[in-house]
Amino acid sequence: MTERVVLAYSGGLDTSVAIGWIAEETKAEVVAVAIDCGQGGEDLDAVRQRAIDCGAVDAVVADAKDEFATEYCIPALQANALYMDRYPLVSALSRPLIVRHLADAARYHNATMVAHGCTGKGNDQVRFEAGLAALHPELKVLAPVRDSGMTRDKAIAFAEEKGLPIDVTKKSPYSIDQNLFGRAIETGFLEDIWNAPVEDVYAYSEDPANPRDPDEVVVTFTAGVPTAIDGKELTPLQVIEEMNRRAGAHGVGRIDMVEDRLVGIKSREVYEAPGAIALITAHQELENVTVERDLARFKRGVDQRWGELVYDGLWYSPLKDALDGFIAEANRHVSGDIRMELHGGRAVVTGRRSEKSLYNYELATYDTGDTYDQSNARGFIDVWSMPAKIASLRDQASS
Amino acid sequence: MTERVVLAYSGGLDTSVAIGWIAEETKAEVVAVAIDCGQGGEDLDAVRQRAIDCGAVDAVVADAKDEFATEYCIPALQANALYMDRYPLVSALSRPLIVRHLADAARYHNATMVAHGCTGKGNDQVRFEAGLAALHPELKVLAPVRDSGMTRDKAIAFAEEKGLPIDVTKKSPYSIDQNLFGRAIETGFLEDIWNAPVEDVYAYSEDPANPRDPDEVVVTFTAGVPTAIDGKELTPLQVIEEMNRRAGAHGVGRIDMVEDRLVGIKSREVYEAPGAIALITAHQELENVTVERDLARFKRGVDQRWGELVYDGLWYSPLKDALDGFIAEANRHVSGDIRMELHGGRAVVTGRRSEKSLYNYELATYDTGDTYDQSNARGFIDVWSMPAKIASLRDQASS
Amino acid sequence: MTERVVLAYSGGLDTSVAIGWIAEETKAEVVAVAIDCGQGGEDLDAVRQRAIDCGAVDAVVADAKDEFATEYCIPALQANALYMDRYPLVSALSRPLIVRHLADAARYHNATMVAHGCTGKGNDQVRFEAGLAALHPELKVLAPVRDSGMTRDKAIAFAEEKGLPIDVTKKSPYSIDQNLFGRAIETGFLEDIWNAPVEDVYAYSEDPANPRDPDEVVVTFTAGVPTAIDGKELTPLQVIEEMNRRAGAHGVGRIDMVEDRLVGIKSREVYEAPGAIALITAHQELENVTVERDLARFKRGVDQRWGELVYDGLWYSPLKDALDGFIAEANRHVSGDIRMELHGGRAVVTGRRSEKSLYNYELATYDTGDTYDQSNARGFIDVWSMPAKIASLRDQASS
Amino acid sequence: MTERVVLAYSGGLDTSVAIGWIAEETKAEVVAVAIDCGQGGEDLDAVRQRAIDCGAVDAVVADAKDEFATEYCIPALQANALYMDRYPLVSALSRPLIVRHLADAARYHNATMVAHGCTGKGNDQVRFEAGLAALHPELKVLAPVRDSGMTRDKAIAFAEEKGLPIDVTKKSPYSIDQNLFGRAIETGFLEDIWNAPVEDVYAYSEDPANPRDPDEVVVTFTAGVPTAIDGKELTPLQVIEEMNRRAGAHGVGRIDMVEDRLVGIKSREVYEAPGAIALITAHQELENVTVERDLARFKRGVDQRWGELVYDGLWYSPLKDALDGFIAEANRHVSGDIRMELHGGRAVVTGRRSEKSLYNYELATYDTGDTYDQSNARGFIDVWSMPAKIASLRDQASS
Repeated sequence: MTERVVLAYSGGLDTSVAIGWIAEETKAEVVAVAIDCGQGGEDLDAVRQRAIDCGAVDAVVADAKDEFATEYCIPALQANALYMDRYPLVSALSRPLIVRHLADAARYHNATMVAHGCTGKGNDQVRFEAGLAALHPELKVLAPVRDSGMTRDKAIAFAEEKGLPIDVTKKSPYSIDQNLFGRAIETGFLEDIWNAPVEDVYAYSEDPANPRDPDEVVVTFTAGVPTAIDGKELTPLQVIEEMNRRAGAHGVGRIDMVEDRLVGIKSREVYEAPGAIALITAHQELENVTVERDLARFKRGVDQRWGELVYDGLWYSPLKDALDGFIAEANRHVSGDIRMELHGGRAVVTGRRSEKSLYNYELATYDTGDTYDQSNARGFIDVWSMPAKIASLRDQASS
Repeated sequence: MTERVVLAYSGGLDTSVAIGWIAEETKAEVVAVAIDCGQGGEDLDAVRQRAIDCGAVDAVVADAKDEFATEYCIPALQANALYMDRYPLVSALSRPLIVRHLADAARYHNATMVAHGCTGKGNDQVRFEAGLAALHPELKVLAPVRDSGMTRDKAIAFAEEKGLPIDVTKKSPYSIDQNLFGRAIETGFLEDIWNAPVEDVYAYSEDPANPRDPDEVVVTFTAGVPTAIDGKELTPLQVIEEMNRRAGAHGVGRIDMVEDRLVGIKSREVYEAPGAIALITAHQELENVTVERDLARFKRGVDQRWGELVYDGLWYSPLKDALDGFIAEANRHVSGDIRMELHGGRAVVTGRRSEKSLYNYELATYDTGDTYDQSNARGFIDVWSMPAKIASLRDQASS
Repeated sequence: MTERVVLAYSGGLDTSVAIGWIAEETKAEVVAVAIDCGQGGEDLDAVRQRAIDCGAVDAVVADAKDEFATEYCIPALQANALYMDRYPLVSALSRPLIVRHLADAARYHNATMVAHGCTGKGNDQVRFEAGLAALHPELKVLAPVRDSGMTRDKAIAFAEEKGLPIDVTKKSPYSIDQNLFGRAIETGFLEDIWNAPVEDVYAYSEDPANPRDPDEVVVTFTAGVPTAIDGKELTPLQVIEEMNRRAGAHGVGRIDMVEDRLVGIKSREVYEAPGAIALITAHQELENVTVERDLARFKRGVDQRWGELVYDGLWYSPLKDALDGFIAEANRHVSGDIRMELHGGRAVVTGRRSEKSLYNYELATYDTGDTYDQSNARGFIDVWSMPAKIASLRDQASS
Repeated sequence: MTERVVLAYSGGLDTSVAIGWIAEETKAEVVAVAIDCGQGGEDLDAVRQRAIDCGAVDAVVADAKDEFATEYCIPALQANALYMDRYPLVSALSRPLIVRHLADAARYHNATMVAHGCTGKGNDQVRFEAGLAALHPELKVLAPVRDSGMTRDKAIAFAEEKGLPIDVTKKSPYSIDQNLFGRAIETGFLEDIWNAPVEDVYAYSEDPANPRDPDEVVVTFTAGVPTAIDGKELTPLQVIEEMNRRAGAHGVGRIDMVEDRLVGIKSREVYEAPGAIALITAHQELENVTVERDLARFKRGVDQRWGELVYDGLWYSPLKDALDGFIAEANRHVSGDIRMELHGGRAVVTGRRSEKSLYNYELATYDTGDTYDQSNARGFIDVWSMPAKIASLRDQASS
């Protein structure tokens, strides 16, 4: 029986060419798998048809937007996941989703191989292959762009030679990866890190400098999950879409940074993630209101590690599961409303209210009604400062 | 010989009254110590004269702005110090400076006591007393507002009865603490955390919504210290003043948050710190360019702990010294230029250049000239993902 | 109606006197609560009777040994809880158990107050009061030894004056706290930290220098819980008792250290915890076999924080709950057998086997059958060392 | 001009064969570099002569024992470096030393290549190559055992064919790596992790079960460096040698564990490191006496990361330098004497004294002379437990 390869298929030039390229290289049948995680563009039927037309024996297309929102974006939100304090892991979140679909398709189609179109210097190859190693370790991985010389020029030549139904003349100066949670842009002139991005690179967000009226929005969370906007109940997918639209209209969530890739180099990355940034901002402030201090302090380290782990391609890993155990517990009481003003590139929290609030007006106020017992302070401070004081006496004696 | 008390003197109602209050309470002579850490307002001679007029036997006034900038604000910048990822420690930085001057004055004037005007539910009492415990542990601490019932009403009555030269009618609705590095605002209506701040609370920054042209600024750092703006060499004090002015003009650095106080409660705080926020933003991005990945990842935890420690009043502590050892080493190569655009409440980095850059165009580029050896990727990924893969095989076998 | 006080009652001099002392001081009725967490000594009926004879209106006695083992000692084992890498939290684990019973008794007896016999410089007062603050915050806490001058001399005088049925002449030079999980010893001559403990201070363990034959033991764990010894299924309580006996016979688990108390001072502590140390040793090695590397590395920090938190009296706290979420997940596969040799003060692991093992003979062996693909190494190392290499090139260029 | 290869030369079969193997493979001249880091065995002149006899154009031999002790072992001691809480990094410490000598020799001899005899599944290949990448990144690395099929059988055949002066019949069942700081043993039967080590595998330590009298030793530290034993001043090298001898005589420092290798697998390792374990035990307890609590708590995480980094081959890395900055500061006051009893496989601290002690008898004692102010306790506890208390009230209200 002919062997089968499951290919992560985007519908673009590279992976369309890869169908035939891999078939020639391996003598195997290629099953294309295209996953909609909110990247927009063509409809799935067109993508499916192109795969077939390019030689795939079968094509699996799946609308995974709800799954992506609920099982990948929401956990990231609960972890306030910002790699290097900036980047909300847009691409790093979609890869484990795609990997899960690839592994399922490989089992369904009895495939022995899986293929992706990543290069050898990015993070995504790691996310694909580490994810596959965890979910379906028997599969052999093919990476024609990285391992068998399928350069862009060769891909175009192959497409022309085979008469593939792809427009090879459509050449964007930008290399884009986008999904529901945001958009990543790479392009030659940004590789000079002294150059600023131009307005042209952005698609999910308006120029923050455009004059317009502020937009006030109230996001409701239940146990760390956004469940309503302006009082209207929504699914996670709907919340993210709505916030992308509204925060994007005000230029929220543009990110321009030099980033540490897992593969050992620094790269310059430009992102836009209006919904993600607005929602994380809201979630963080609701945590400030509802999460106890020691837990909040420790959670920062957990959140950081969660983000690094996912960035580094280890979504399917024992540490990720254990961090999730911590984060789920920490989000148990993160319920309530956050009011934000979206304007001029910023999502600014202006109000918070919660039945789970640990903010206590009577303890906090300096006005009438203050119930805080200030007589405890002296004893507290004496004990609190004692270790440093004893050390200081020692240091003075010995210097 | 009559005992002496050194009083942390601000020139305002509370500490002016405290001069006489403490003198009556202790039968000791009061020496007022007023430190200029950039809070603006009256000149130091006027402050000094008022202390004398209110009954101080002596008054020490010191312009400590340069010292504050160099020895307190710059280390905070090198630690990217943001308590709870938001607050640049404005007040928490000035207290150890003041404490050092109080301890010195106490030694000079042979004082046996030291006094401050803090209440019993804030962080500053801890910062004063923990700092004094470390620098001059023999001093007895007096806190008349907290410990001997010197309420505002009683202070006003005392001032009127004694005819003190203070305008007791001047009643601001705001409780303000400000210095070179920023400004903290508390007031009754903000104690309802659903209320948004009004424009009126701000003084260091313009409304970000005001239309105006963006301002482009280039900050030069040398080993983590900002040393020039737009090519002009400046002292740390001048850098912060200049950035306060320019970033403040664009509404940068406004912060509104619910915060975990050391004394066990959550409080609502509004800050503005235009220079601090703009400089930290620049410093972080220059670290992204010049600091190696593993060091950068670990430094986030060090930075967090540094901020918590200083917030918690433990500036003078052995852990602080050891964290400083780490941070100094980590900043050794943080040199270069960061270009930012200041506009609409945001300081946005648009360019970076550095002779110490670890960003390597040849390794990063996808264009001609790429020197990255992609053939390493497969071996790397196989080893990298092996522990999670082995665990996954185990989990699948046992489920 | 007369108010009621619930008293943490040990049956000893201090808390027996406290019954009458508190009754006189508060005019309230005292309900004594005595909890057996494995401290041995008198039977609970005798303790109960003494409380009544000393004036308690009621006495609650409870055998909580199983509860203590299962709900307090086992979680500590799963966290490998060793404060300062040494001390298995013996007393720190029993206090939250006692607190829970006190809170329950207070609710049952409609008490408005709770009392303990701790001094003002130890950790236990914090553990009692912080626990009560969490479980029953309405209760007022009485601490007669600390707060109303009930010194030992006064307690003896009180007992004699009232003719309490306590032998006040029985004076041990040692201050002991002991329970199922271990034993803590304090005494005057150990306060000189240059003095070594004498054999006389120990009761749970034989002198390790005594000659005797080694004892081989196999401990079976299921998801981090010890469930059998030498193949015989046992409850957690039975496991700990058995290991105390067998490891204690070989002098395992003696600890002598200078320790950082929560209340700001260093103290010298001597402990013996044969079962705890032997079980933690076994659990750690089973983790080495069954827990994936990244998870194991992160868990060390989680374990440390768990131990500090419990030592610091914060068993009932949100951070503890979230750490438990992590630890439970991390222990999911910690199942298998550990063989140990108990001898000469040491519990030495000599074998491990597990169906959940991540140790893979085929990958690890250097003999025939090796399946590890060494050709991956070069690529791995090149990518792994690249960030440090790039930094080194930069440093050399700039030095 | 003929190219040159610098070879890390041990004098054993593999690296002796590698001289000729590499010469044939590369047509380059081989310079053998043999470093004495305390591994004992043959004298350096014999090693040097064998290299020449095997075909090396030159041989560099260096007694680096003092350098190894002072610059590699002592920093590990200051970091209490125990990988996975057990292994004192014996081999991981010597590799960066050897690398430094290789890099120096390569510069001196104008070599363009460097060679080592490591396999492709161990940590040492990473330590060699990552170290070389940092110190001399231009060198090309040769690893004949790993990359060009130089198996043991082929090496023996090569040696016989070329008549190399090596006894190829001398076949030890053990694979040993040893140096001043300890000894690592691997062998086939230990690859079954249920098997216990046999006495035969050990060489640095006597059987702990042998009856003999305890040995009491006093180690003096100055700023974290051991500077005297029993009052006699010694160099770091002498201290380690002396402690190896004395602690080894009592069977101290045997380690048997399953370990997480950097290269992705778990392996079973047996070590003996009598001096290292005894010295780390002493250093830890002196830290308990002289290091302030918050610093001690944070240092555990720093120490752990230091150990992992060095284990992982990143001795020469920016993070290592910054951690060293922290550790040096933390060791500033770690001065004083630790008395230990060495017996039955254990090094037990029995006394400590230090002019830098933070242990304060007056504060710690429960006897006459107690200066601790217990009246602070209530206020401290109220503030300390407030966050958890407020959270508990919230949880109860909402459950």
